[in-house]
Amino acid sequence: MKNRTIEVCLSPLLSGCHDFSGKCVVIIDVLRASSAIITGLFHGVSAFRPVAEPDDAVFWAQKGYIPAAERGGQVAEGFSLGNSPFSYREGQWAGQKIALTTTNGTRALLLSLAAERILIGGFLNQKAVVRQLVQFNGDVVLFCAGWKGQLSLEDTLCAGGFLALLTEYFQLTGDPAVVALDLHKQRENGLETAVQSSSHFLRLAAKGLADEIAFCLKSDLYDMVPLLVDGELVAGS
Amino acid sequence: MKNRTIEVCLSPLLSGCHDFSGKCVVIIDVLRASSAIITGLFHGVSAFRPVAEPDDAVFWAQKGYIPAAERGGQVAEGFSLGNSPFSYREGQWAGQKIALTTTNGTRALLLSLAAERILIGGFLNQKAVVRQLVQFNGDVVLFCAGWKGQLSLEDTLCAGGFLALLTEYFQLTGDPAVVALDLHKQRENGLETAVQSSSHFLRLAAKGLADEIAFCLKSDLYDMVPLLVDGELVAGS
Repeated sequence: MKNRTIEVCLSPLLSGCHDFSGKCVVIIDVLRASSAIITGLFHGVSAFRPVAEPDDAVFWAQKGYIPAAERGGQVAEGFSLGNSPFSYREGQWAGQKIALTTTNGTRALLLSLAAERILIGGFLNQKAVVRQLVQFNGDVVLFCAGWKGQLSLEDTLCAGGFLALLTEYFQLTGDPAVVALDLHKQRENGLETAVQSSSHFLRLAAKGLADEIAFCLKSDLYDMVPLLVDGELVAGS
Repeated sequence: MKNRTIEVCLSPLLSGCHDFSGKCVVIIDVLRASSAIITGLFHGVSAFRPVAEPDDAVFWAQKGYIPAAERGGQVAEGFSLGNSPFSYREGQWAGQKIALTTTNGTRALLLSLAAERILIGGFLNQKAVVRQLVQFNGDVVLFCAGWKGQLSLEDTLCAGGFLALLTEYFQLTGDPAVVALDLHKQRENGLETAVQSSSHFLRLAAKGLADEIAFCLKSDLYDMVPLLVDGELVAGS
């Protein structure tokens, strides 16, 4: 009998159905907060401070942080930096700290602060996250950020991919985990096609971001896991 | 281009992500409110009045209704009738009106009152519901009742089954619809096995209700659709 459990929270609106305390939570916001944070930290950003609102990012800018804000899939008004992974993959912000607010990902993170440990996961660092979860001595929640409260196909697919790699070590718990794993099995050989039927893809593709989406779906480009330490996400391994 | 849309609300907690007004909503609570209401109306119950709380059922009892209440998968304390379909399939309540409150199903129904039309659907009457939806001149929401806010495998699977029969007529809208249809495709040849991995199955089976679950999963036993008219569910066709 596996004595550790893994469950899936499919949307911030469902967070009340989960108890995060003492657990390791993996925030999954494939398009695009997870992917931007993984990419940025790998390419030298010192830390991302997740904040709830654009005004909070401005507040931290006074303390030396680079402010970054995304709303509705675009750089928020009045900001020059958002959550595009392409904005972070050239080492532009190496050595800097960034205060970041996004529509969905930071919301999920701020809802799970009762957790023992909070990691950021995506397709880009899936195997690195799996390695950390296997070593974690406790239960796990995969927390899909979704889109404005609604569950999203790409985050659910990513959670299912994690589950497929973790069933050997954890007891799957709750119906959302069964749904996510089934979805992954149904689509694992056609991930890009699957995501092309998602509503988020259509929103972002309409803004000319199809290349970015393809980037966010790449598997294991980075062997690094963002970890929340003292309110900031830093490169964990 | 199909000009009518169909979407899936996977839990009452996600109802804020959907606009029900002007649409036809199908409430799906396979285990067991949908199944009990379909069975009861087919076997002669005049009407089910969905009410929020056990106290409301007691209130309506003073007006001649038979009070029925389920909480946590059992007949609620102080009541002699709950939401077991087996309590309704012998014509015991023919000609009577029943005031019913359940953990999940009536909650979903009361959240969707802005709809133009509200139907009750389950495996037991799937084809009859499909026939009505094809004739409905507007958009459709399949509203899964879930379990205490969490989405449930059996309701999601049932919604996916509806979608498979309706893609010819409606434009699937939103990621939850993609997830539900994929789940159905993955599991359509092993519905009972799939539901046996659901948390709700384990809860009810522990109470000796495995036979009832098997009954609720039967396809198209009844050619009848419960329809909400003036606050009561009546046999619609």
